[in-house]
Amino acid sequence: MATVKGMTPASLHEIKAQIILANTYHLFIRPGHDLIKEFGGLHTYMAWDKPILTDSGGFQIFSLRDLAKITEEGAAFKSHLDGAKLFLSPEDAVEVQEALGSDIMMCLDTCIPHPATREEVIDATALTGRWARRSRDVQNRETGQLLFGIVQGGMHADLRAQAIDELVEIGFDGYALGGLSVGEPKELMMEMTEKTAAIMPQDYPIYLMGVGTPDDLVEGVFRGVDMFDCVMPTRNARNGMLFTSTGRLVIKNAQYQRDQRPVDESCSCYTCRNFSRAYLRHLYMSKEILSSMLNTIHNLHYYVGLMEDVRKAIEKDRFMQFRKEYYAKKEIV
Amino acid sequence: MATVKGMTPASLHEIKAQIILANTYHLFIRPGHDLIKEFGGLHTYMAWDKPILTDSGGFQIFSLRDLAKITEEGAAFKSHLDGAKLFLSPEDAVEVQEALGSDIMMCLDTCIPHPATREEVIDATALTGRWARRSRDVQNRETGQLLFGIVQGGMHADLRAQAIDELVEIGFDGYALGGLSVGEPKELMMEMTEKTAAIMPQDYPIYLMGVGTPDDLVEGVFRGVDMFDCVMPTRNARNGMLFTSTGRLVIKNAQYQRDQRPVDESCSCYTCRNFSRAYLRHLYMSKEILSSMLNTIHNLHYYVGLMEDVRKAIEKDRFMQFRKEYYAKKEIV
Repeated sequence: MATVKGMTPASLHEIKAQIILANTYHLFIRPGHDLIKEFGGLHTYMAWDKPILTDSGGFQIFSLRDLAKITEEGAAFKSHLDGAKLFLSPEDAVEVQEALGSDIMMCLDTCIPHPATREEVIDATALTGRWARRSRDVQNRETGQLLFGIVQGGMHADLRAQAIDELVEIGFDGYALGGLSVGEPKELMMEMTEKTAAIMPQDYPIYLMGVGTPDDLVEGVFRGVDMFDCVMPTRNARNGMLFTSTGRLVIKNAQYQRDQRPVDESCSCYTCRNFSRAYLRHLYMSKEILSSMLNTIHNLHYYVGLMEDVRKAIEKDRFMQFRKEYYAKKEIV
Repeated sequence: MATVKGMTPASLHEIKAQIILANTYHLFIRPGHDLIKEFGGLHTYMAWDKPILTDSGGFQIFSLRDLAKITEEGAAFKSHLDGAKLFLSPEDAVEVQEALGSDIMMCLDTCIPHPATREEVIDATALTGRWARRSRDVQNRETGQLLFGIVQGGMHADLRAQAIDELVEIGFDGYALGGLSVGEPKELMMEMTEKTAAIMPQDYPIYLMGVGTPDDLVEGVFRGVDMFDCVMPTRNARNGMLFTSTGRLVIKNAQYQRDQRPVDESCSCYTCRNFSRAYLRHLYMSKEILSSMLNTIHNLHYYVGLMEDVRKAIEKDRFMQFRKEYYAKKEIV
């Protein structure tokens, strides 16, 4: 928490990371937003001088659903660390994020499990709308921090359309697709993304939360998404799964034991410039910290590079061509 | 293994590390020296272009004594990984280190536990001497690799003196003090170091193996030692113990929770330039990889800087003054 796992800020600069995400829930629990505020905010605290997006804490509370109780007022839940009873209202979530001093704040939302009844989705989406208004009302507009609204609506395009109308009426600095990638089939996720993104305000950032694989990024952009966040590049790195332009590589596989090639021969990251698959396999098998470090550098470099390529393709008005080439490069490794 | 735990080679360069140690035993077991030889040696394999010292494997075999059997021929032992029966003769140890391509190789020696009877020490020291001769005889002198002999002799100054005579007669590129820091009182270790170093060849490097704390380095140099190796700066870093010019700092202590100061206000390392004690405490409490990374950078920077200061003081012929100042700076933190 308050760290991109396995990366120093210097390494993040080196892979050209432009923004990082911090979990409000985790920082709320430990070390506490008041403490971070004493340091002048998260940027100083963790020595990161580029943008930070903070989530609202909603997703983590949702993940711990059996410990949480949602009411009109907010979310009552227990700390996963010591079981302490805690409460977070939409106003609290804004206050915490203002203390953290993030550049982009997210409204507290009620995540909806999949599957859910239409009634459940209607209720939760309406509550998210009321929370969004309370968030915007309480926000201190003078800090320069942006606030994004989150579009719920489950797997119902009409409910998502309604949610968008409500949020746009309140007016936010950006809009996020929430409640996707929560266990539904990939096709359904993409269908909902496409239908929702198409009717979201096109002059504002569209942010698909918690997604995804490299393919998901390309497909998300294809459907109109501008921003993503995901643990996948860092978590998979620690588990020895590496992303390359030609597909995925599981570094522990015996086939890499004597493989002197870099992970990805077309990659210019620190890891690929200096180390072989064989060495990375050895580090992984030996459970060395350096394994997580080097794998994370590579995966994040791959993700950041992919999005850079996507942006360039869009600027040159050749994204469709780029997408075709992206898939052509892939093969079973 | 084949890594300085928690450090990339780039970070090692940044703290001005000039030489690293690799464990022959560990690399012999995994991934195997043959594999590393295929890569052109350890330098290429782990992407480290400065000097490497390899130990002989003896100490690890000693540490696993109940799994090892020492004969005239060499050491029979079981792999700590899978229990496979393995054997390492002095000739094997040289062959393995030649395959690794280290810059400084160590002769296989028989470590002696403390306490031991005089008879045990005499036998083990004599065997170490015979092994040293076999090592020097079998060494390929054309690789440019240096070979150091190891002075045993337990806690008996006369036996150590004999051991030195034998090794000097064979003739090595450097001489190490072995079998110290094996559980004996600190005063006894320093006494043996002083008596032994005084009669070792002064025109060759004198290397005190497996030592030690910052105080041990200063006291070792005071007694004539040129080189040291120890896990302490890296291992203690991972356990949250930080070395500073004014003493030790246990980062998990509650007193650092809101402490905005760097670990050591007189330190110029990446960690101290960017992060507070409070943040480092948070990372440690959260069991973040970055905790080990940043703490290791600091501790190694401290050790390397201390030895740099020692060298400068010696060059200016003011080591005694330096030693006085070193202790004056220390206080209970």
